Amino acid sequence: MKLDAVLARIDADLPDATERLLALLRIPSISTDPAFSADCDTAADWLVNDLQSIGINAQKRTTPGHPMVVGHADCPAGYTGPHVLFYGHYDVQPVDPLELWDNPPFEPAIEQTKKGEVIRGRGSSDDKGQLMTFIEACRAWKAVHGVLPAHISVLFEGEEESGSPSLVPFLRENAAELTKDIALICDTGLFESAVPAITTQLRGMQTEEFTITGASRDLHSGMYGGLAGNPIHVLSGLIAGLHDDSGRITLDGFYDGVQELGDEIRSQWQGLGFDHAAYLGDVDLSVPAGEHDRTPLEMIWSRPTCEVNGIWGGYTGDGFKTVLPAEAHAKISFRLVGDQNPDAIHESFKAYIRAGLPDDFSVAFSDARGAAASQMSIDNPAFEKARKALSDEWPRPAAYIGCGGSIPIAGHFKDILGMDSMLIGFGRDDDQIHSPNEKYDMESFHKGMRSWARILAELAE
Amino acid sequence: MKLDAVLARIDADLPDATERLLALLRIPSISTDPAFSADCDTAADWLVNDLQSIGINAQKRTTPGHPMVVGHADCPAGYTGPHVLFYGHYDVQPVDPLELWDNPPFEPAIEQTKKGEVIRGRGSSDDKGQLMTFIEACRAWKAVHGVLPAHISVLFEGEEESGSPSLVPFLRENAAELTKDIALICDTGLFESAVPAITTQLRGMQTEEFTITGASRDLHSGMYGGLAGNPIHVLSGLIAGLHDDSGRITLDGFYDGVQELGDEIRSQWQGLGFDHAAYLGDVDLSVPAGEHDRTPLEMIWSRPTCEVNGIWGGYTGDGFKTVLPAEAHAKISFRLVGDQNPDAIHESFKAYIRAGLPDDFSVAFSDARGAAASQMSIDNPAFEKARKALSDEWPRPAAYIGCGGSIPIAGHFKDILGMDSMLIGFGRDDDQIHSPNEKYDMESFHKGMRSWARILAELAE
Repeated sequence: MKLDAVLARIDADLPDATERLLALLRIPSISTDPAFSADCDTAADWLVNDLQSIGINAQKRTTPGHPMVVGHADCPAGYTGPHVLFYGHYDVQPVDPLELWDNPPFEPAIEQTKKGEVIRGRGSSDDKGQLMTFIEACRAWKAVHGVLPAHISVLFEGEEESGSPSLVPFLRENAAELTKDIALICDTGLFESAVPAITTQLRGMQTEEFTITGASRDLHSGMYGGLAGNPIHVLSGLIAGLHDDSGRITLDGFYDGVQELGDEIRSQWQGLGFDHAAYLGDVDLSVPAGEHDRTPLEMIWSRPTCEVNGIWGGYTGDGFKTVLPAEAHAKISFRLVGDQNPDAIHESFKAYIRAGLPDDFSVAFSDARGAAASQMSIDNPAFEKARKALSDEWPRPAAYIGCGGSIPIAGHFKDILGMDSMLIGFGRDDDQIHSPNEKYDMESFHKGMRSWARILAELAE
Repeated sequence: MKLDAVLARIDADLPDATERLLALLRIPSISTDPAFSADCDTAADWLVNDLQSIGINAQKRTTPGHPMVVGHADCPAGYTGPHVLFYGHYDVQPVDPLELWDNPPFEPAIEQTKKGEVIRGRGSSDDKGQLMTFIEACRAWKAVHGVLPAHISVLFEGEEESGSPSLVPFLRENAAELTKDIALICDTGLFESAVPAITTQLRGMQTEEFTITGASRDLHSGMYGGLAGNPIHVLSGLIAGLHDDSGRITLDGFYDGVQELGDEIRSQWQGLGFDHAAYLGDVDLSVPAGEHDRTPLEMIWSRPTCEVNGIWGGYTGDGFKTVLPAEAHAKISFRLVGDQNPDAIHESFKAYIRAGLPDDFSVAFSDARGAAASQMSIDNPAFEKARKALSDEWPRPAAYIGCGGSIPIAGHFKDILGMDSMLIGFGRDDDQIHSPNEKYDMESFHKGMRSWARILAELAE
């Protein structure tokens, strides 16, 4: 059987595949920090070269930000299955606080852990390790049979971790080239680190950054303390007021478009037996902290949130400085679900902040970005084919699940290209993506490649 | 008359005195930042040399932190007045945010402004410019008459801006050497930038730094947002709860020891005609923001405060990172008045924070320091002599006033050495001490020297 030879090839080639991933991980392609701009470009070049080496005609395509990588392979002879567009991102999160990394984040290494072998380094799970599972599956098919099994195009982005400013214009300008039958997106995880999963429900996101200003300069707290308002106090009060005592978000109209779970999805999720105690215990927490009347799985998959992702103001260095600062700053993100409208929430947030400012205070907003939540239709037969392929590879049958994270690309593929997405990934809950000591399990990498080899075979049937 | 020749000498020597101050200002003696440790040492050496050049036998004295400078001059023949200990500090505040300085903070310069000539640079007003007014007055007496007019010792500290950790042990160990009849402290200002003043009432201070911790590592807000508590939210709620709606501080027992103003002081302060609109207008504020039922002068001189001086947590760099942070941090200071007990407020603050932590959250406190408020007795005849000398120099008669800042040295002189202090200084409200573009008016520097020359003459009468 054609597939068996490909799987055997993947098994035999694992050491070389790992070396290729390590090479990609060594490129510090942090997209949000302009200091690493050249490294993002280097990562794009690396991918173009690697795709060309397996017969995918790939190019680096410039944008006003970091480049896209687009590639197309020839359609196999006699192929009647779907033309797929595989998406991944080659950029990574910043690495601070650097001192909490056990090893330098861009000197990746293979480590033996109690839970098995892992690939440690920034981007190993999010998303370089994941995107390489697909490339390696293609490489094995090409090596064994001389052709790819399905009609494949690829799109790799370099701005996913910095709000994807160039993505929507790029999709619009290249819609004819990029619109295929279905998208494959590898940026998600196994359910509870064990059950292979196709994510059909994704939260959206609205991000806000703002500065509260009081006096026109920093003041001495002895000369003005008690008389002049303190922007850190004002900011703290505004943040504290964003949630009520039951954990609900207080913005006007915030819950417009939030739907209750359907009975079918609710019972399917209950069937998953989510172990929230273990999920929280992994990070040394024990008590769900969100809305009082929601289950933990609802909280992270189907309920909207408001989180402060960063706050700063006044003197934050060593020692003490009795300053009464002129400014205080915060970065806030809202996770969105159902039909919540990011623009409406942006307006409601601004109105809330402005209404809460005392006399003499002002606010400046910057860098707001929004993407609505996504919901896939599983009527497309590709979903059941992929679910079968995943169930063949892994010890447990694959499930349709939700995801608390925001992967705006799925919404953009739907809105701009009219294309559904299958979100399949092999990350684990303890991968520490966006945190120090990020890792990707060798098993995820290995079985991930095998999973894609199987999925491509199924799609070609 | 002996004094007239000294005042003329001060006038003639102003250019050289200015050059000496600029030389001292060029030494970046930031005490709170260990990177500037050697510079603090250099500043101490500079002062030792300068004091020796005017016949004061000075030494650099080591401490576990930055050195003290101690000097003693011979008693003038036939002198029957008080032996004074002059105190100043040669260390300065940090300079961030550096980008808000128009010129490098340690490249001081003379500037012409609409309000007159100023000396611009970190430490020009707080406290190098002020302490040099005293040294220059001594230099002029020495140059004209060959002797100092009074019996003088000096103590210069290098840790005033970083909590003075070495001060109390040093005073205890050297109590016999340092206990004189009265202390002269030059670290305060003119009232409303115009009225020469002797400060008789100083707020104390309790500083707190603490970290709120939730999960054991930074989390992805998509994976945990809504389920795991956010330490920035917890910190914000705690800060918001430190004041009630009327501006009062909510800590248990916080107002114990806070006295109402006596009728005499209240009427004297009313007589000052404090222009709070101008005071706030200087920094583009218009509305007093503190306790609703207090006058602005009470707020800054005789009422206790609670200010957040710094806050930080999560991602604060460029761009966006959807982190749900493990930790959030704040630096808070309380200004104290009357008989408020710093230790009791420290305990009450810790109890408040601990009581407000949700499940799974913890707090770590560090670096708390306290100093009680000070109240001078003006029965000592030196006070009226100094008030007369100041009234002779300046266009308006001198007043006894309060001060919102904390100058713990006055309390330590009283508690440890049993010595009263006269707090006399020539700073102005717009000196921007602790802020970018700190300056000292040339008039303050010049008339400050002349004021000390007169005060020393009066004390010798």
